[in-house]
Amino acid sequence: MKLIRYGEAGKEKTGIILNDKKYDTSGFGEDYNEQFFETDGLARLQKYVEENKSGLQEIAENERLGSPIARPSKIICIGLNYKDHAEETNAPLPKEPIIFFKSTTALVGPDDDIIIPKNSVKTDWEVELAVVVGKKASYVEENEALEYVAGYVLHNDVSEREFQLERNGTWDKGKGCDTFAPIGPFMATTEEIEEVHNLKLWLKVNDKMMQNGTTANLIFNIPFLVSYVSQFMTLLPGDIISTGTPAGVGLGFNPPVYLKAGDVVELGIDGLGTAKQVVKAYAKN
Amino acid sequence: MKLIRYGEAGKEKTGIILNDKKYDTSGFGEDYNEQFFETDGLARLQKYVEENKSGLQEIAENERLGSPIARPSKIICIGLNYKDHAEETNAPLPKEPIIFFKSTTALVGPDDDIIIPKNSVKTDWEVELAVVVGKKASYVEENEALEYVAGYVLHNDVSEREFQLERNGTWDKGKGCDTFAPIGPFMATTEEIEEVHNLKLWLKVNDKMMQNGTTANLIFNIPFLVSYVSQFMTLLPGDIISTGTPAGVGLGFNPPVYLKAGDVVELGIDGLGTAKQVVKAYAKN
Repeated sequence: MKLIRYGEAGKEKTGIILNDKKYDTSGFGEDYNEQFFETDGLARLQKYVEENKSGLQEIAENERLGSPIARPSKIICIGLNYKDHAEETNAPLPKEPIIFFKSTTALVGPDDDIIIPKNSVKTDWEVELAVVVGKKASYVEENEALEYVAGYVLHNDVSEREFQLERNGTWDKGKGCDTFAPIGPFMATTEEIEEVHNLKLWLKVNDKMMQNGTTANLIFNIPFLVSYVSQFMTLLPGDIISTGTPAGVGLGFNPPVYLKAGDVVELGIDGLGTAKQVVKAYAKN
Repeated sequence: MKLIRYGEAGKEKTGIILNDKKYDTSGFGEDYNEQFFETDGLARLQKYVEENKSGLQEIAENERLGSPIARPSKIICIGLNYKDHAEETNAPLPKEPIIFFKSTTALVGPDDDIIIPKNSVKTDWEVELAVVVGKKASYVEENEALEYVAGYVLHNDVSEREFQLERNGTWDKGKGCDTFAPIGPFMATTEEIEEVHNLKLWLKVNDKMMQNGTTANLIFNIPFLVSYVSQFMTLLPGDIISTGTPAGVGLGFNPPVYLKAGDVVELGIDGLGTAKQVVKAYAKN
């Protein structure tokens, strides 16, 4: 299944994609949140869709998409998990995964604007494959880790490099600004993705290809990461683990290149769709 | 007011403390969560208590206390915010606050057990004053920051030093293990605390005084911290900002001293009550 959420920000309704068309599932009566995943919601949703297929309403093409997952308890990110990206940022290859958090208030839809934070001069992009946790996970073994995965989503791990690296730690400072976690367009359940470790992922800025990688180059793979993170904290259903970005971020250029108002960021991953974000300057509401 | 939550873990009911006695307020019909704070819940609760004072049921002395705040969207911590603590850990004084996150799954009641994580050998203590955010805060000015504070709580920022400092970053790795955020016994609303920057805070292990400080020694004070954090991410009602710990943590001893099963940790802050945690080894359920 491919899950979506659509409509006004903060009031999203649920839906699914079937044969490339979007359908409303709000009659199912639950949001795609912690409780949904915790109570075997995917199987229940599947049943609902099968039983109601003929009656599902198609969603208008111009409807805004929100994050396909309602606000999770946490968004965990893995740092420097592609060799080429570690090299471009002059960082040593990690001996074990780097973990940091994004404030969940950063979550937005896949095509929402990226707002450059007040006083920011180094807002950067990072296309990433993110994992959605399907059930509560603590001290999970690597060979069982995929049983704890509900699906995958496309994520732009937007990052402010000065906040992240030059403002006296930790990385969390440059990762959680509002709009810094555009997620979607949809969550693909695991059976939709044949080989999650062999997906092309790419990102363009103003139509110029900046990142063009493959998840085959992940240093630490997904079962390892789920198991690893679960050694340090309990993962809850609906939590997001973003698995790191390949080479080609703005920080890696000489001189570095950062986002400015008016820029257009497009990104995609095989099987996980594409997203498009317009960059805007911060303006007080 | 002094707010408490009590009863079985995960199913806590709400209450208040009046004249040192605990009373049930579950008839008020709301948990002390994001929505409660967002909708002026403190004022509504105050009114409820005044109108129902004679009918409130006293809570039995032996009832377990939970965290006085339901699970927040985030627990943000400030690192090295007391000069003496920065010195004992051989860290330079921060030029600006260090920010890190605790996984909210770490949240437990004030007298719940501290579980030493699997494979941990360096579990440590940190008595801290934590701020509870009262309303949504983004780019708040320092001189208005206290308007965004609902109250204060006692927090033991339990930390695994190997996970935090020797496992290839960031600090988040050693801060969010289950049971690593005992909070309470109660949340004191701001008017209960006369001078929040002049409170003694202390922590004992097995009856031996380990930390004995005062919030007068905070490097960055509370209005500054609320304003500062709000420059990097949006704070939501019910969010917790823990303001750092004074000298006397286990890491600061030569050689360092860490918690072991059977240890008893007691801590307190003037006006915010005391808490007592028994340390246990991890055991698979």
